[in-house]
Amino acid sequence: MTATAELVLEVGYAATSIGAVAARAGVGKDTIYRRWSGKAELVYETLFTQTETAPVPDTGSLAEDLTALLEALLEEFTAPAAAAALPGLLADFAANPDLQARIRTQFLAPAKERLVAVFERAIQRGEAVPGVPVDLVLDTLAGAIFFHVGLVGERPGPELATQLAAVIGQGIEAR
Amino acid sequence: MTATAELVLEVGYAATSIGAVAARAGVGKDTIYRRWSGKAELVYETLFTQTETAPVPDTGSLAEDLTALLEALLEEFTAPAAAAALPGLLADFAANPDLQARIRTQFLAPAKERLVAVFERAIQRGEAVPGVPVDLVLDTLAGAIFFHVGLVGERPGPELATQLAAVIGQGIEAR
Repeated sequence: MTATAELVLEVGYAATSIGAVAARAGVGKDTIYRRWSGKAELVYETLFTQTETAPVPDTGSLAEDLTALLEALLEEFTAPAAAAALPGLLADFAANPDLQARIRTQFLAPAKERLVAVFERAIQRGEAVPGVPVDLVLDTLAGAIFFHVGLVGERPGPELATQLAAVIGQGIEAR
Repeated sequence: MTATAELVLEVGYAATSIGAVAARAGVGKDTIYRRWSGKAELVYETLFTQTETAPVPDTGSLAEDLTALLEALLEEFTAPAAAAALPGLLADFAANPDLQARIRTQFLAPAKERLVAVFERAIQRGEAVPGVPVDLVLDTLAGAIFFHVGLVGERPGPELATQLAAVIGQGIEAR
């Protein structure tokens, strides 16, 4: 994974290959294919699963918890290697039905768990009502970030997390 | 544009070329390049600008106006040729800085105008307060749809428009 991160930064996503990663890591390609289905999955795990081990935010406020989750995601997505890899990575995911089929069940599952934990606490506090459409909120937040970083190629400022959390937080509040 | 829509449906986005479009339309390639910078722009205008000429919804309710806008967008994005073209089209946009630079100023401008019209009426009715972050809402809605159709490859049901409009509508309501 260190070799992968270095290569993406040095030569870009398109020019990074399993062969080059194997050579730099001093292992055979088989060793890599034993754990990852290919370049897209290897790069995804290397660059986009950093926030998953951090504690789930618990500030006592739905909007602030969402802001904290989004700030961590934005930081991950705008890191130089991640921003460089994202357009090519999205294209590979979009073109590969096997990867697409695993987006919800595998790649997004940890992010969904974190959102569910935040929503459950908001429901206990009476801030949100049960039945929050978690998948919809996750797609909406992820979509907004992908749209900025992966499609429009904008580097979002820190206000994006706050604004997005405010709109979505108010959007699912109990009233 | 008819030749383009037919070709995308028949052979897919990747195999559609300006040469093939020109041959089917019975014109020279120069004729096409006089109006479009390349395949991505031609396919985008052909398949993703259908809703722009429809009247802006004016139901008297912010959530219902947003639902109507989203239903029209979803219909456009899930039409067979559009759904077939979207992953390749997104990849081409993401990889082309010239196109990326024009996403906001050109490709999304008509959608933004329609959203602004809906928000202005909601502000007049007292449903929303001035200062709605229109770009943020547009990115969020567009991102959620791109994410479903272009990335995860899911065909969204009609409830997506209603749910998304409800969350975003409540999220920007005056209170």
